[in-house]
Amino acid sequence: MTRRIAILGSTGSIGKNALRVIEALGPEYQVVGLSAHSQIQLLADQVRRTQCKVVTVTGDGLAGRFQPLVQGQGVEVLTGPEGLVQMVQRQDVDVVLCAVVGVAGLPAVLAAAREGKHLAVANKEPLVVAGQLLTEAAKAHGSTILPVDSEHSAVFQALQAGRREEVHRIILTGSGGPFRKARPEDLQQVTREQALAHPVWAMGPKITIDSATLMNKALEIIEARWLFDVPVEKIEVLIHPESIVHSLVEFADGSVIAQLGHPDMVLPIQYALTFPQRLKGLARHLRLEELGTLTFESPNPQTFRALPLAYQVARTGGTAPAVFNAANEAAVAAFLADQIAFPRIIELIEHCLDRHTIKGRATLEDLLAADAWARQEVKDRLKTRVSGHKTQGHRPAAVRQQHVSR
Amino acid sequence: MTRRIAILGSTGSIGKNALRVIEALGPEYQVVGLSAHSQIQLLADQVRRTQCKVVTVTGDGLAGRFQPLVQGQGVEVLTGPEGLVQMVQRQDVDVVLCAVVGVAGLPAVLAAAREGKHLAVANKEPLVVAGQLLTEAAKAHGSTILPVDSEHSAVFQALQAGRREEVHRIILTGSGGPFRKARPEDLQQVTREQALAHPVWAMGPKITIDSATLMNKALEIIEARWLFDVPVEKIEVLIHPESIVHSLVEFADGSVIAQLGHPDMVLPIQYALTFPQRLKGLARHLRLEELGTLTFESPNPQTFRALPLAYQVARTGGTAPAVFNAANEAAVAAFLADQIAFPRIIELIEHCLDRHTIKGRATLEDLLAADAWARQEVKDRLKTRVSGHKTQGHRPAAVRQQHVSR
Repeated sequence: MTRRIAILGSTGSIGKNALRVIEALGPEYQVVGLSAHSQIQLLADQVRRTQCKVVTVTGDGLAGRFQPLVQGQGVEVLTGPEGLVQMVQRQDVDVVLCAVVGVAGLPAVLAAAREGKHLAVANKEPLVVAGQLLTEAAKAHGSTILPVDSEHSAVFQALQAGRREEVHRIILTGSGGPFRKARPEDLQQVTREQALAHPVWAMGPKITIDSATLMNKALEIIEARWLFDVPVEKIEVLIHPESIVHSLVEFADGSVIAQLGHPDMVLPIQYALTFPQRLKGLARHLRLEELGTLTFESPNPQTFRALPLAYQVARTGGTAPAVFNAANEAAVAAFLADQIAFPRIIELIEHCLDRHTIKGRATLEDLLAADAWARQEVKDRLKTRVSGHKTQGHRPAAVRQQHVSR
Repeated sequence: MTRRIAILGSTGSIGKNALRVIEALGPEYQVVGLSAHSQIQLLADQVRRTQCKVVTVTGDGLAGRFQPLVQGQGVEVLTGPEGLVQMVQRQDVDVVLCAVVGVAGLPAVLAAAREGKHLAVANKEPLVVAGQLLTEAAKAHGSTILPVDSEHSAVFQALQAGRREEVHRIILTGSGGPFRKARPEDLQQVTREQALAHPVWAMGPKITIDSATLMNKALEIIEARWLFDVPVEKIEVLIHPESIVHSLVEFADGSVIAQLGHPDMVLPIQYALTFPQRLKGLARHLRLEELGTLTFESPNPQTFRALPLAYQVARTGGTAPAVFNAANEAAVAAFLADQIAFPRIIELIEHCLDRHTIKGRATLEDLLAADAWARQEVKDRLKTRVSGHKTQGHRPAAVRQQHVSR
């Protein structure tokens, strides 16, 4: 059966990999729609390669510059977030792969769920920020949500070996990032370069910093809570530096099912597109005898405060996860711009959560408002602090070059 | 739904564990029938505890001595292999757990498959010796075969995450036994005590020796070939000394699904009884962070000649696996009786396979005849050799006390 796919965010890392995966899967898998925010030249190349029917340019005023690049290709060009929504609602789209950064893709993902489309979700925001809304819409309209990150894909696969009500624990693995062995006080000295040196995965700077604070795992806890409909207490994080076991599920009988593979996004991307089938693809075969050793340890909640915080945020629900996520994004941007020291990231998140008035049963508008509020709150806070900061003689951490134990 | 269970071989290690598991599962799981070969006192105790309706005593002339022990219990007493067959055919038996040693349980297991019973198979013989017959009978009569050993149970569970035609490799793990690091020439010096010192599992002497020769993995390759209906080339053995990952399945897309747990038979026993359900049971929860490290390596086919031989035997089929299995049993008995040195076990198996005239499409009678022939051939060979042995000044290996590297 042919699957007709729309990719939201086709010029990013996930989008590009998805196009490779789809090409390798053969003619049964067809690209119908693509979208990009600003990389219009690459998007035009992708339109030529895929011969897709529709494309959305979300970047302000870029559609006009894009149009001539696809002249005569017979492709419909849509614009803005409404363009994304229109694109996913098309009759000739079966599968929607969402890989747009931030909350920009949220309305489109919700629209796809309400149309009962097969949803492959690669970015964290839809489930972190709007987990309840999205999973309820999917359930009501018969949409399946397939996770595209390696951890939740692993959990999804492991869950096939039992029933949802038989789940005892979901164990999300993480490499532990560059500061796995650090004590809380070591984090004061962390430079931007150290934080960007991820030991396993090559990713964008924002996600790499999230891997260094373990904020990525914190967000994954919240995602898993919604995606798999389990109380957050049943979700655990396990540090596994080799990143071969992508996550595990323990069932009621004590049996633990794990999914393993080389760290490579093509596998979860492909699984999300082909589920419930498995097809020969681009992933490299795993040979455990060549790896030799796999190691596991507990994360240190004092060093990685994002983790205990995630449980609180998940229990609170409502707009709290939106604030948690947006405050982190704004704080990481400030860290990457050398405006703050590494431990300030989590402090700013905590500050926003403390100041935020939670709204319980939140609509999409409430969630987007909470997201915007938290970003502004971080900015305001930084304005106040930066002056205070300087008078205290502090310098951004990046200029210090002491080494952190790994 | 109540499950009514007959246990063939209830006084052995698997049988006793199965009774513990069933007790813990509660009133939905009822023991209807039990059997034992010679431990009639324990069998009588089990009849009292389980209040089962029928019992089979297979040991020659023991039924008469057993009868008074269950006087007034209202339990029907059957005898011999025909008794086992009659027991499994009863209308009030839903599940048959076969845990009898050797080929004695074969007719009863085949009868249960032909009755479409849910079959839990704990001993290797049904699938090694009569794999083709048994799986064909099960398929024809709608019987499900659930493996009870930890490796095949793991594979069975991992297979739930995909489809049979999507299986790329089945990877059976094994601890490697006490001679994991040995070179072929080291095996000459192996004593009985060294061979009996298994690093992980506490098992009977026969199975422990099979773990030292890796004959257990060789037999498991043949079992897996039938149980999972895959060409033997897709089955591999991976040494994993910690015995936590009980086996793995690699699917076409490159995704590897593994089942993990503490080495404890209660988990596979329970899963075989409750499948497709999973229930809270006696198994201890696994904490990978406490274990810390898992290691993997390839087995050495020069040291463990049983492994390459298994592929040949599986490809040959017919009566070859019956000879492979029976010759091993006879040779291990001779080793345990200090009659032969450790490397002679595999030599005797090779000798029997060389001398045997394979029958392709074998009936149960052919298989039992091949089994009996191989046992006799080992005995005859030993008679000839033992005299030759002595004149060459050889002594059984057990008297030497040199240490083998582990």
